[in-house]
Amino acid sequence: MESSNLTKPMTAEVISTDQLLAHWQGHRQLTRRVIEAFPEDQLFTFSIGGMRPFGEMAKELLGIAVPGAKGMATEEWETLDENMDLEGSKEKLLAAWDKATEELNHWWAKIPSDHFQDTVVAFGQYKDKVYCSILYFIDNEIHHRAQAYVYLRALGITPPNFWER
Amino acid sequence: MESSNLTKPMTAEVISTDQLLAHWQGHRQLTRRVIEAFPEDQLFTFSIGGMRPFGEMAKELLGIAVPGAKGMATEEWETLDENMDLEGSKEKLLAAWDKATEELNHWWAKIPSDHFQDTVVAFGQYKDKVYCSILYFIDNEIHHRAQAYVYLRALGITPPNFWER
Repeated sequence: MESSNLTKPMTAEVISTDQLLAHWQGHRQLTRRVIEAFPEDQLFTFSIGGMRPFGEMAKELLGIAVPGAKGMATEEWETLDENMDLEGSKEKLLAAWDKATEELNHWWAKIPSDHFQDTVVAFGQYKDKVYCSILYFIDNEIHHRAQAYVYLRALGITPPNFWER
Repeated sequence: MESSNLTKPMTAEVISTDQLLAHWQGHRQLTRRVIEAFPEDQLFTFSIGGMRPFGEMAKELLGIAVPGAKGMATEEWETLDENMDLEGSKEKLLAAWDKATEELNHWWAKIPSDHFQDTVVAFGQYKDKVYCSILYFIDNEIHHRAQAYVYLRALGITPPNFWER
């Protein structure tokens, strides 16, 4: 019976760094389709209950993803900047999104594989373990994108299926 | 220089099984506060754009969490059941939520630590790796809870802070 125990590692992996990146990029692809689903004239204007329009939330997501991964890779942090000038343009938002997709892959590859359990101060202000911060970045994207699902439904538009990535 | 390399394992862990459970239960605590924030008469009735009331979404989350973890632990799956009878009662929903919190801990502890990279057919119909299915369960909760944030804002109620778990 000992030999069968030996075939299994003491600690098995829950998720690899490559798998976590693929998980995030899958969500980012869905978020891109949600941006695309908005009529241009509603993306930066439509709101419910005093909340931000989804275009503004998407700018927050852009301000987090690449600077977040770059910070984890380099341990150098800039201040969180959610206010890039996209001139209220859906085309410019989608172009910025696609640029970020490539840059996220670039910086992710430079995060040391043994860095995920380290504690960092993300953006110079959020102290947490690396894996917690990265899950927070992803969860925050799911959270705001889900709010866009309600905006789209309120506008009479069927959003993309949540399970398609 | 070789000795410093030897202090680091070849493959470092991104997240442990205990950490993934804590991550999920942290989200579940926040979801509980969102349920609590709803006026009883709106929890199972208020809707935007033809979407389900949040009480119904919460029943879906209950139908997934414990049966999902139990299935991963036992490899025996029941059909997905999102329709437990809570009689439209916020108190009954919260009681079911708290019971599920304990049961999730119970079944999670029985999932073999080397099972997360295996492929399963969750609920007899969703084929994916264990870690993907579990992330899907968590992401689905974040997604629907975020829709409840819009409902609360539309009702003039300030929802709990997203970052407090």
